[in-house]
Amino acid sequence: MDEFGLIQTYFAGSRAAKEGHGLGHKQAIGIGDDAAVLAPLPQGQQLVVTTDSLVENQHYFSDVNPEALGHKALAVSLSDLAAMGARPWAFTLNLHLRSIRKPWLEAFSSGINTLALKHGIALVGGDTVRVQAEEAVVVTAMGLVPLGQALLRKGLEPGDELWVSGSLGDGAWALEHQPLAAKLLWPEPRLALGQALCEQQLAHAAIDVSDGLASELGHLLQQSSAHRQGLALVAHVQFESLRQCLGPELQGAVSQGRLSLEQACLCAARSGDEYELLFAAPVSARPSLRALSEQLDLRLTSIGRVEQSQMDQTQLNKQQVHWYGLDGKELLLSQEVLAGFNHFQEPQREKA
Amino acid sequence: MDEFGLIQTYFAGSRAAKEGHGLGHKQAIGIGDDAAVLAPLPQGQQLVVTTDSLVENQHYFSDVNPEALGHKALAVSLSDLAAMGARPWAFTLNLHLRSIRKPWLEAFSSGINTLALKHGIALVGGDTVRVQAEEAVVVTAMGLVPLGQALLRKGLEPGDELWVSGSLGDGAWALEHQPLAAKLLWPEPRLALGQALCEQQLAHAAIDVSDGLASELGHLLQQSSAHRQGLALVAHVQFESLRQCLGPELQGAVSQGRLSLEQACLCAARSGDEYELLFAAPVSARPSLRALSEQLDLRLTSIGRVEQSQMDQTQLNKQQVHWYGLDGKELLLSQEVLAGFNHFQEPQREKA
Repeated sequence: MDEFGLIQTYFAGSRAAKEGHGLGHKQAIGIGDDAAVLAPLPQGQQLVVTTDSLVENQHYFSDVNPEALGHKALAVSLSDLAAMGARPWAFTLNLHLRSIRKPWLEAFSSGINTLALKHGIALVGGDTVRVQAEEAVVVTAMGLVPLGQALLRKGLEPGDELWVSGSLGDGAWALEHQPLAAKLLWPEPRLALGQALCEQQLAHAAIDVSDGLASELGHLLQQSSAHRQGLALVAHVQFESLRQCLGPELQGAVSQGRLSLEQACLCAARSGDEYELLFAAPVSARPSLRALSEQLDLRLTSIGRVEQSQMDQTQLNKQQVHWYGLDGKELLLSQEVLAGFNHFQEPQREKA
Repeated sequence: MDEFGLIQTYFAGSRAAKEGHGLGHKQAIGIGDDAAVLAPLPQGQQLVVTTDSLVENQHYFSDVNPEALGHKALAVSLSDLAAMGARPWAFTLNLHLRSIRKPWLEAFSSGINTLALKHGIALVGGDTVRVQAEEAVVVTAMGLVPLGQALLRKGLEPGDELWVSGSLGDGAWALEHQPLAAKLLWPEPRLALGQALCEQQLAHAAIDVSDGLASELGHLLQQSSAHRQGLALVAHVQFESLRQCLGPELQGAVSQGRLSLEQACLCAARSGDEYELLFAAPVSARPSLRALSEQLDLRLTSIGRVEQSQMDQTQLNKQQVHWYGLDGKELLLSQEVLAGFNHFQEPQREKA
């Protein structure tokens, strides 16, 4: 088995690749030339691109279920496309492997091919290289959005309501208590939601919750504030609302008395690795969002509100999110919670 | 320095990124959202995509000049775009690093940014992750070709002349004798040539010589033969012609008596890691190619000819290239030479 044969065998022959799924497009030339030639973009669409590296011992361990790893490797990039409101179009795959293990590759490719087929995205290229130590999987995914309508991080408006899809917190809980929890291994990118928000123009801004709710909310506020160049935006988030979207694992732990409801809400604020969407919408969008939630059979929870602060960004000192406990009083969350997951960050101490 | 800050500091601020170079396009949104939103594609163009992984200890060593590594990481993908006749458009960059070393990153980003600026390709996204052992660099590059005019591997016609750009063989020679040779470290992707071949419709097929001339020629023949579904194509290549495009290092070694002219031609047949273009053109294109060579100040050498064989593919047993030594007699090259560079291949014995 050589590096060309490998990709041909496991990936190029997949149904998704063969059928060239995605908006009814066919990629003109797939794997096997110096580069893939993609079909012309549909009229009125523009391209969005995202790339993610998953590295062994950092993002997964060698005993990971390879089918789940294949699923997740593509899912994290699809979640980025979802956050932009994009429709999946095509992706490339780089495999850094110590060796060719047929059963592993069969399972891995099954995981990635199944998800690709489900969401109509075609594998159009890749590279396979040998490594001595840690393996890695790199996916670069392309999606399509209607011209000028991509959901961005910078569109927050004062008065917007903040919403999250699905449930939060099981990720943070599972990381400590059940490393093999289904949600961590098989995240479901919220593509239908992102596309509906984009195409029905319901949301002002969106982001996927891959690094923790608190952290992602900070990104939304910072980028929107920087974009406005005036007074900074702040968010107010209530645990009373957040408790409505606790994940089932967390709910179970609360009902078993393993942690308090407030601790569970803190888990939801940290979340991480869950790939739900956090988005902001004007209050007027509420009826449409309720209808969308029913249509997609997907919980959408309003967790807080965006306001204009009385300070410019330099004065805010990063404290742009105000959290309110179940008693309604404001909480001070640690920097660690706010920062989210960050590979290169120095360890931070709790605030005094 | 965190993973967002790193890319912002070293790459997003680069001139190429800021100016959004490439056919006068500006990418609408660069690094910093969930995905990059690219400008609408120009009318009548389609996208080509290629991705390459460079892994430490496999493709480079830790003491590599980081500026050269930055150059090469992008150059290998640009060479793939060149082989398709594409104009560079946008790329993503994944860095798998053990640590953040500022001087290293400054040099690396200088190498990649300089080449990006030169060829008008904009960095639009990336990911930075920590590794424990081997570092790696992944580039995924997008280019544009006029609709339906991409240069492919499968377009060979009987009677075509085979051409190579620049010089060959210094790569194979340097790998053994001068691992730091300039051509290996600073390959120049032949973008202007590829674009001219595509836009003037001079070539029937093209490929870049990254894995060795013999190997790449085999790819052209196999894919073109498979495409024709009739009798297979074969190529005839003369060392007498190949000697016209020996690299300067090889020529020097021959004149110093360190190897024979025939051995030097064998080096050129193996070449590898040199990123010249190998292409096929009808004899009628000869005057245009001579003019193009002058215009680009780039040597173009006709090294052989394509013919239709009397056998179908199954009968050919991979011996699709006939090599003729300086005495005009046919040579048998070993499987190793024919196979080119292949990370996962079992060691092969020389033919008896």
